[in-house]
Amino acid sequence: MTSPNDPTLRSFIDVDASSDFPIQNLPYGVFSTAANPSPRVGVAIGDQVLDLAVLEREGLIAAAGANSVFAQPAINPFMALGPTVWTQTRGRISQLLRHDHPELRDNAALRARALVPRRDARLHLPLHVEGFTDFYSSKEHATNVGVMFRDKSNPLLPNWLHIPIGYNGRASTVVVSGTAIHRPCGQLKPPTAEVPSFGPCKRLDFELEMGVVVGQPSRMGDRVTAAEAEAMIFGFVLLNDWSARDVQQWEYVPLGPFQAKAFATSISPWIVTREALEPFRVEGPKQDPAPLPYLQQNRPNNYDLTLDVGLKTAKMGHAQRICRTNFKYMYWSSAQQLVHHASSGCAMTVGDLLGSGTISGADKDQRGSLLELSWGGAEPLELADGERRTFLEDGDSLVMTGWCQGDGYRVGFGEVEGTILPAK
Amino acid sequence: MTSPNDPTLRSFIDVDASSDFPIQNLPYGVFSTAANPSPRVGVAIGDQVLDLAVLEREGLIAAAGANSVFAQPAINPFMALGPTVWTQTRGRISQLLRHDHPELRDNAALRARALVPRRDARLHLPLHVEGFTDFYSSKEHATNVGVMFRDKSNPLLPNWLHIPIGYNGRASTVVVSGTAIHRPCGQLKPPTAEVPSFGPCKRLDFELEMGVVVGQPSRMGDRVTAAEAEAMIFGFVLLNDWSARDVQQWEYVPLGPFQAKAFATSISPWIVTREALEPFRVEGPKQDPAPLPYLQQNRPNNYDLTLDVGLKTAKMGHAQRICRTNFKYMYWSSAQQLVHHASSGCAMTVGDLLGSGTISGADKDQRGSLLELSWGGAEPLELADGERRTFLEDGDSLVMTGWCQGDGYRVGFGEVEGTILPAK
Repeated sequence: MTSPNDPTLRSFIDVDASSDFPIQNLPYGVFSTAANPSPRVGVAIGDQVLDLAVLEREGLIAAAGANSVFAQPAINPFMALGPTVWTQTRGRISQLLRHDHPELRDNAALRARALVPRRDARLHLPLHVEGFTDFYSSKEHATNVGVMFRDKSNPLLPNWLHIPIGYNGRASTVVVSGTAIHRPCGQLKPPTAEVPSFGPCKRLDFELEMGVVVGQPSRMGDRVTAAEAEAMIFGFVLLNDWSARDVQQWEYVPLGPFQAKAFATSISPWIVTREALEPFRVEGPKQDPAPLPYLQQNRPNNYDLTLDVGLKTAKMGHAQRICRTNFKYMYWSSAQQLVHHASSGCAMTVGDLLGSGTISGADKDQRGSLLELSWGGAEPLELADGERRTFLEDGDSLVMTGWCQGDGYRVGFGEVEGTILPAK
Repeated sequence: MTSPNDPTLRSFIDVDASSDFPIQNLPYGVFSTAANPSPRVGVAIGDQVLDLAVLEREGLIAAAGANSVFAQPAINPFMALGPTVWTQTRGRISQLLRHDHPELRDNAALRARALVPRRDARLHLPLHVEGFTDFYSSKEHATNVGVMFRDKSNPLLPNWLHIPIGYNGRASTVVVSGTAIHRPCGQLKPPTAEVPSFGPCKRLDFELEMGVVVGQPSRMGDRVTAAEAEAMIFGFVLLNDWSARDVQQWEYVPLGPFQAKAFATSISPWIVTREALEPFRVEGPKQDPAPLPYLQQNRPNNYDLTLDVGLKTAKMGHAQRICRTNFKYMYWSSAQQLVHHASSGCAMTVGDLLGSGTISGADKDQRGSLLELSWGGAEPLELADGERRTFLEDGDSLVMTGWCQGDGYRVGFGEVEGTILPAK
C-alpha cells in the first residue's frame, strides 16, 4: 500500500495547497453538528470533516472490532488501542479518501452522511486530559528568563542542561480553541508594595507551546526508553499556556507555579498524529554536555514545524503577527521529556498531555511570550495600528498557528485562539 | 431523627471502644471479596464492612433514585450527588445499623448478604483521583525546612504567611494502603559531585499528611468562599507523600518538585466524612498577619485529630512509633486551601485530592518526616532494637494512623501502610 505520507497522494476532495489538512495529514478531532449534537471523532480533510462514527457504524473502519471507539466524546478509547491500530486506521482512512479509490468517492449517499463542512462542525476538546505536565525545554526561553530575573552572565540554572525540567500542571482547565478566557485574579505583590493584595492580574501573558498527546500508558514503577517513549506518543497539538506573571512572581518560590497557570490552558482542536509528522523529523540542537544515558536517543527527535503567533486587539480588524519561530529549536525533545517523566516510576496514562514549554528562538521576533517580546514590560510592542502592548489587555485575541511545509502541501495544525474577557 | 454523631448511639454490631469504626464514624471505602471480585462501595462498622451495593439493590438505600452509585469501583458517582444526599445517606445508614432498629438487625438473610468481615475484604483505592494537589501548610514544618536549608534567623519565605502555598502533584500514582513502593530512581547530584548521575534514591522519606477529598465541583472562572469550599469537602484520608529528598534537591528550582514526588502517594482506604469529624472541630492557630479577605473564614476550621507514625524495619516484629502529632496544628485550614486553589478561576472537580502538607508540631517528636526527625540526616533515629535510621531503607514499613477521641469512642481512619522494595 502507498504510504499515507506519500507527497503525491491526492484526495477526491479538493484541498488547496495552502490548506492545513491535505490527505497527508488526517488529524483527529471531536466535533458535533446542529443536526447531531453528540460529540464524536472525526478527521479533518480540506474544508470537510470525515465522521468516523458513521464509517465505523457502516463497517467501513473497524478499529476496535465490535466496540465503538469513534462514537465517543474523546479520542482516548481509540488511543488506548495502541500504535498498530493507529497505523492501520490512518492507512484505511487515507485509502477511503484517495482520488483513485471508489468506496467512498462513488457513494453519494455515504458521502452525504460521512462528510460535514468544517464550518458546520462545532469543535470540542479532542481528548479527556488525564494529567497535564508542562516542561521548560527551550534553551533560548530559559536563557531569556534567566537574564531578566537572575544573572545576565550565568542565566541557566545548574540543572537545566541535565534535566528536561518540568512540573505538574492543572488538567481541569485545559480548554479547546475558541474558549474565551476570563482575566484571572490572584495575590499580587509588586516589589514596591509592603503587603500583597488580591485582584485582577496585571501582567497576563501567553506562552507558545506544542502539546504532546500520550496515547499509551506505562506501568507504575517502570521506566521507559526513548524508543518506547516515542511509540507512546499519539500526536501533537498547539498549546497556549496562559500565564499570570505577577501572580507567578509572588507565589512560585519554593514549590513552583500554581494559580498563575491554573486558570486556563488552550489547545488546538485537531491532534496531528506523530505519523503525519514523520517526513518533517530533524535533528535538534547539539546537546552539550551529553545527556545522562537514560535520556539519550539514537535518532533525530525534533520536527521542522513553523509556528506563528498573532495578536488582535479589540480595535484591529485582523491579527498581526508578533512572533514566528520553529519547534525544531527545542533543546529537549518530546521523547526525552516523556522518558524523564517516567524515570522515577511515575505511571503515564492514556490522555496525558505534555506541554513542551515556551518555544523561543535566537532572534528577537522568535520569542514565544510577551514577557520576552516586551522584555519584562520594558520594551512595549508597537502594533501596526499605533497601539502598544506589554501584556494582554481585555478584548485582545491571541492566535497561534503551526505547520510543516512539504513539497506543494503542508501538514498543519489549524489554530488555537483565545480572547481575554474582563476579570469576574 | 437522632444525629448520626450522637455519642450515645450504639449499633447491633459489637464495636470495641478502641475501634476506629463505631456507628458515629461510617467511613466509605471500595472493597471486593473472593466471592464477589467486583469492587463496590461499602462502609466500615466495627470489624465488618456493610455492602452498600447490596442495600441499594434491595431498595434499602436509594441515593441516586434509579441509578446505581454503589455498585461502582469508586466513590465519585456518589460524591457527585452532593451534600444533601451525603447527609441523607449517612443518616439512613446510621439508622439501619442502630441497635434499636430492626430492619437489618432482624433480617438474618439480609445481614448475611450485606455484611462482610473486614478481614475478608480486599480494599481498593476509594476514589478515582481526578487531580492531586499538595500543600505546604504547617508552619512548624515550613520553619524546620527553612532553618535547615535557608536561613536560621528568617526561615519562612515572604509569601508563606499570606498564601496557602501548594503545587500540582501527580494523580496517576496515588495508591491505596498496602501497596508496596519500589525505591525510585532519579537524577542525583550531591553537593560534592561535579556532575549528576542517575540511580536509586538515597534519601527516601515519608511525609505525614491528611488528604481532603473534594466531592463537589466549581466552575472554571469562578471563585468560592470559605463556606462554599467547606460544603465541597466530602471527607478526609490519611496520606503519605513519599519523597525522594536527593532527587528533589537537584530538580526543584525553579518549577518545584516533580519526579521527587511523582513515583507514589499512599492513602488510607476509608474516607472519613466531614460530617463525622464535626464534633472534633477546633480553632486553628492564630493567623497573624490576618489573611487577605478572600481567605478569611468565620468559624473554626481545624480538627482535633491525633496522628501517629510507626516505622517497622525488616528486623522488627512490630512498628515503633516515631512521631505523634495532631492535625489541629495546621496553620492554613483545608477550607482555606480549597478557596485559594479556586481563586484564579481554576475549576475544581469531583475526585480532586488535596494533600495538607506535612503535619509537624512544635516538639521534636511531633515532626512529620524523617527529614525533620533526623534533622537532614545529621541526627539518626535510634530504634528500640538498636538499629538507626536517617532515611528509609529497603524492607522498611511505614504506618500512619489517626483518630479523633470522643467520650468512650473514637472516630478513626484505620491506617495507611507502605513497605519499601528495592529499586527496579
